[in-house]
Amino acid sequence: MLLAELSERLLAGDRRALAKAITLAENLDQRRDELLRLTAPHTGRAHILGVTGPPGVGKSTLVGALARSLRSASCRVGILAIDPSSPFTGGALLGDRIRLDGLENDPGVYVRSMATRGLGGGLCRAAWDTARLMDAAGFDPVIIETVGVGQTDWEIRHLADTVLVALSPGAGDSIQALKAGIMEIADVFVINKSDLPGADQTRAEVAAVLDLQQVWDWLPPVQPVVALEDRGIPELLAQVAKHKEFLNSDGRWTTKRAQRWKTELQSVLFAKLQAGLGQWQDTHVTEQALIGVTSGLLTVTQAADCILEWASGCQVATDGV
Amino acid sequence: MLLAELSERLLAGDRRALAKAITLAENLDQRRDELLRLTAPHTGRAHILGVTGPPGVGKSTLVGALARSLRSASCRVGILAIDPSSPFTGGALLGDRIRLDGLENDPGVYVRSMATRGLGGGLCRAAWDTARLMDAAGFDPVIIETVGVGQTDWEIRHLADTVLVALSPGAGDSIQALKAGIMEIADVFVINKSDLPGADQTRAEVAAVLDLQQVWDWLPPVQPVVALEDRGIPELLAQVAKHKEFLNSDGRWTTKRAQRWKTELQSVLFAKLQAGLGQWQDTHVTEQALIGVTSGLLTVTQAADCILEWASGCQVATDGV
Repeated sequence: MLLAELSERLLAGDRRALAKAITLAENLDQRRDELLRLTAPHTGRAHILGVTGPPGVGKSTLVGALARSLRSASCRVGILAIDPSSPFTGGALLGDRIRLDGLENDPGVYVRSMATRGLGGGLCRAAWDTARLMDAAGFDPVIIETVGVGQTDWEIRHLADTVLVALSPGAGDSIQALKAGIMEIADVFVINKSDLPGADQTRAEVAAVLDLQQVWDWLPPVQPVVALEDRGIPELLAQVAKHKEFLNSDGRWTTKRAQRWKTELQSVLFAKLQAGLGQWQDTHVTEQALIGVTSGLLTVTQAADCILEWASGCQVATDGV
Repeated sequence: MLLAELSERLLAGDRRALAKAITLAENLDQRRDELLRLTAPHTGRAHILGVTGPPGVGKSTLVGALARSLRSASCRVGILAIDPSSPFTGGALLGDRIRLDGLENDPGVYVRSMATRGLGGGLCRAAWDTARLMDAAGFDPVIIETVGVGQTDWEIRHLADTVLVALSPGAGDSIQALKAGIMEIADVFVINKSDLPGADQTRAEVAAVLDLQQVWDWLPPVQPVVALEDRGIPELLAQVAKHKEFLNSDGRWTTKRAQRWKTELQSVLFAKLQAGLGQWQDTHVTEQALIGVTSGLLTVTQAADCILEWASGCQVATDGV
């Protein structure tokens, strides 16, 4: 299939075309760049939701419940589940773990699982692409579930319009969630398993942390749910809709979309610079600079300046990248 | 105090000088660069241990138990506890939480807590500096406890010689630890709270994951301990010593030290390039490039090339940084 045809079908909402496009993006295929260009003008419509939280709070169940409720309101829902990959197994750890009871054959739900590439890398570039492609194919909202660890959460704040942070009474005290550094990125807090003992305490702890901050543009609401039984889900979606209204009234809806392309451009620029830097790594100059540093003759900054000066002479920094 | 004097006192093992030097590094003081130069030739002796694992497994208690046991063998122990910082409170979340029962006034133990700067940033540069400075001041081993989230763990693998990954039966099933992406960085596994029910299962699960990998240079041992009662700690330290022997026999002890300076140099180079990139951000060229991308006229790569070409003409990339 030609790229133009693939793109046209995708824009018409064709699931097979979407699947193929995401695979191209995932494989870092050289056609990815052109595919993004063809679909770019048709992106920016979908409300992108991030769902994150510590392991064990029931994020996948929550995403399933959200999807069911959204389907009953006739939304076409895109779901992207980010799994950590393991060097041991070479693939995603958890596979297709979103619980879609009753939605398995629903053409209005599109689910994709994706492995992060390596440790600590955060969301892979393909995750950003996938959100864009689902958006271009007319899925709205697009829900992205992350693994709930540091770097990924930092990125989800940029990729998503609305970040739902899920906690549960069973998942340890809230200081542990703070430890994981995810309290600060929440637009909406979800207390899942809120029928369990301790739910009120978890809720109170979240409220206490929120109280520490004096001024809010948007005070994150705290919504108790029981995702397994679909309880509290309509109320949660109402909070999500309110946040969308806030983003629109505030101008952030538009700013976020511009910023995402800027981030994409930056990452390409950065990769090009990094490739340039890589060329200097095994040079004689770098070797000498390191000897200078370890023997205490040069500061690290002086060593870096030596390398940059040399690279400047070679024109590597700008021409070679 | 002059920098040369500070450095001399630090090298003589003076705790006040060490404290002051770490504070300079933490504050990104301009004297940091020179301080590292003065101490660089005296680093590389200490065995750097990383202690990580999911929240709630008792990492701090474990570090306390390790310190007590090392003190009874007359080692001078440096401890660095990395805390996530919170934009809400503006400071470290957990403070001095290492449990040092009986070691509070021991001059042979030096403890420092440090906040990560912002979310997702991983170990701050000051953590690397602190390990170097403790090393230069004659502390050996230097134990670094991290918060057990993705990005930090990725970095601890580079900063530490030996990474101890702590798990416990109470902290959820091992798939959750895999989720957090920390299984792959372990040189030694520690099953803490191994007197609790489920310890054998946790141990078996770790062994099963290790079995997936066919070839090992070093097969990570799995050591059960009860850190609160100092049980299993001498056995654990024996495993740590074995790993040090392995690193030495293998040449990695030396390679790791060279690589750490290379990483430091790279990060300075990278910061300089990034600063250069920052200068292009709000230019007319970038604005035009972004309009080209969002309207589908340019691919992102083409847009990046435009900016680099322009920057090359301006000599920003090499002269401006």
